[in-house]
Amino acid sequence: MKIAILGAGMVGRAMALDLVQQHDVISFDISETNLAALKARNPNIKTHAADLKNFSSYKDMLEPFDLVVNAVPGFMGYAALEAVIRAGKSVADISFFPENALDLDALAKEKNVTAITDCGVAPGMSNYIIGRYNEIMTIDSFEIYVGGLPQTRKKPFEYKVPFSPVDVIEEYIRPARLMENGYIVTRPALTDREWMHFDELGTLETFNTDGLRSLLFTMPHIKNQKEKTLRYPGHVELIIALKESGFFDTEPITVKGHKVSPLDFSSQILFKEWKLGEEEKELTIMKVILHGHDNGEKRTIEYNLLDRYDDETKISSMSRTTGYTCTASANLLAHELFRERGVFPPELVGKNADCFNYVMHYLSERKVVLHKKES
Amino acid sequence: MKIAILGAGMVGRAMALDLVQQHDVISFDISETNLAALKARNPNIKTHAADLKNFSSYKDMLEPFDLVVNAVPGFMGYAALEAVIRAGKSVADISFFPENALDLDALAKEKNVTAITDCGVAPGMSNYIIGRYNEIMTIDSFEIYVGGLPQTRKKPFEYKVPFSPVDVIEEYIRPARLMENGYIVTRPALTDREWMHFDELGTLETFNTDGLRSLLFTMPHIKNQKEKTLRYPGHVELIIALKESGFFDTEPITVKGHKVSPLDFSSQILFKEWKLGEEEKELTIMKVILHGHDNGEKRTIEYNLLDRYDDETKISSMSRTTGYTCTASANLLAHELFRERGVFPPELVGKNADCFNYVMHYLSERKVVLHKKES
Repeated sequence: MKIAILGAGMVGRAMALDLVQQHDVISFDISETNLAALKARNPNIKTHAADLKNFSSYKDMLEPFDLVVNAVPGFMGYAALEAVIRAGKSVADISFFPENALDLDALAKEKNVTAITDCGVAPGMSNYIIGRYNEIMTIDSFEIYVGGLPQTRKKPFEYKVPFSPVDVIEEYIRPARLMENGYIVTRPALTDREWMHFDELGTLETFNTDGLRSLLFTMPHIKNQKEKTLRYPGHVELIIALKESGFFDTEPITVKGHKVSPLDFSSQILFKEWKLGEEEKELTIMKVILHGHDNGEKRTIEYNLLDRYDDETKISSMSRTTGYTCTASANLLAHELFRERGVFPPELVGKNADCFNYVMHYLSERKVVLHKKES
Repeated sequence: MKIAILGAGMVGRAMALDLVQQHDVISFDISETNLAALKARNPNIKTHAADLKNFSSYKDMLEPFDLVVNAVPGFMGYAALEAVIRAGKSVADISFFPENALDLDALAKEKNVTAITDCGVAPGMSNYIIGRYNEIMTIDSFEIYVGGLPQTRKKPFEYKVPFSPVDVIEEYIRPARLMENGYIVTRPALTDREWMHFDELGTLETFNTDGLRSLLFTMPHIKNQKEKTLRYPGHVELIIALKESGFFDTEPITVKGHKVSPLDFSSQILFKEWKLGEEEKELTIMKVILHGHDNGEKRTIEYNLLDRYDDETKISSMSRTTGYTCTASANLLAHELFRERGVFPPELVGKNADCFNYVMHYLSERKVVLHKKES
């Protein structure tokens, strides 16, 4: 099939390298550097420099393609997804925009296309798991813990990120929504801090972030839902200190006559400190715990993922785990394993056993292995 | 006597209120607000609005006075002291400028005047103590621990300061000089962190700052000297994180097209967080330990100070402890207890038993009490 990949950032590039094994791939990006980096890795990938903010161009641009993968930055993700759907193309989306993707459901149905959204780790893999087990047992509650972490713990933040710090800081600021006893409750981000101990990584710290997204609305019958972020201990203490002292305020302050937004300033300073190097080793950790029952019997299902930077392919763990979940989703569409029309977060795709098994198998073939425990 | 007080900030005002009990006092300041606040407290104090950076005006301005107290901000302290000496006036100085006051010794001798400098807590009281004991025993080593702290511990910094954060941050950046085995050694500020436990305050944290100043040069025969700052635990951890991440860099960074100095920005943000309220309760803690011998016998002398905000007079502890050491020093000059000419840090004044006893008595009359222990 002919697949267009919108965005050739770190994850977009890993997806192009994966999909080109089976498909014709053209990657679009505004950055010639990103496209050249991709071409150097595999000359079979076609590249095309384009300003993807020019949404009116999508119709013509995407005309020759069978399928689209949306990997643009989050701030422009929703508009890009809408433009893809309007162009009449099915799409796997990993742009993690803040808007509600389900608002585009009617349009997708009208255009007779399918969009699978939020196809990353969590959201992403975690949604596939919850969607599947929701079919075969009664889930009373679930907890998702997830983090992307550098392998080398450099003080003070012990944190690295391949994109702008401002996107992470926004996760640290935005109130977190949880489901408690059937009610959506809102807590400040960074609350409910707890230590969690992992055999291979030692102690990590977990805290609330607003990560449940579609699950709050597609799974309202699961009365207790939480999603928390994992970091090395100490990170969040420092983040709280900066937040409380005003370093992340958006209201400008006057410094020597210039108005400066503290958030802009702090993002700029932290960019140097948090920037993940091109070949810097990092890892992804996720734990999903489902509590429920089946024929009167209590069941607890646990999925654990610990994935690391790949020394051989030099592909980051974040790219592998989020990217391959998205390329698996794209292949569900390419191979017509999922045929419904509309907008679907992964829990609505994973309810189909074939789709779920396909995704898990696809990931394990790429050595992204989810370990299941049941008790 | 007729005394001019240069500067009517928090400490300058407390000194005016103290000295007006015995003397004619005129306070000078550029801020009408500061002068009005002072006048409201005691109408016997005369006030005069003046730009004290206009150093050439000092000769005429100070002509009518018998004595001067210099309480201008540190950045202009040295130039103000020089102008006072050139005007032919003796002076007690509490402006804590970074330059070396002893460079003005020859000028002061030529003008036949006396300047007592660094008359605060530490430097200040600690120097009086070391100067005195240096006369009556052989001091092998000494340690000084000092901190000004808010009574209420508000996270994250648990710190308040009545002046600009930039002056404190500079103490946290400037390398600290210590005397070790007879050599002056330099350590980064904030190093050698230790916990110290205090009966009334619980655990505090102590670390290197560049506070020995004149003692390194006037007492070179004391082979081990250290001066460390006290803060509530956690404060310095946070400061190190900010420092290491670049928040205190002086090299400007570009934020949305504007060049901004991280130090300027962070000082501005921290001003809100660190600002000591007009009537906010705070305290001063100091511990001076002298190790030495006398006629072959080992002696350890310890002086402890814990002074608190005065609810009755609404005068801060910082003003009481630093200000009254300075007014005591001014009175040493007024009453001609100290008659040498030149520039003298307090250790060179305190070697005189009468001067030392006068200062200690003066402080205790104002309920600033140093507790002595000997072992």
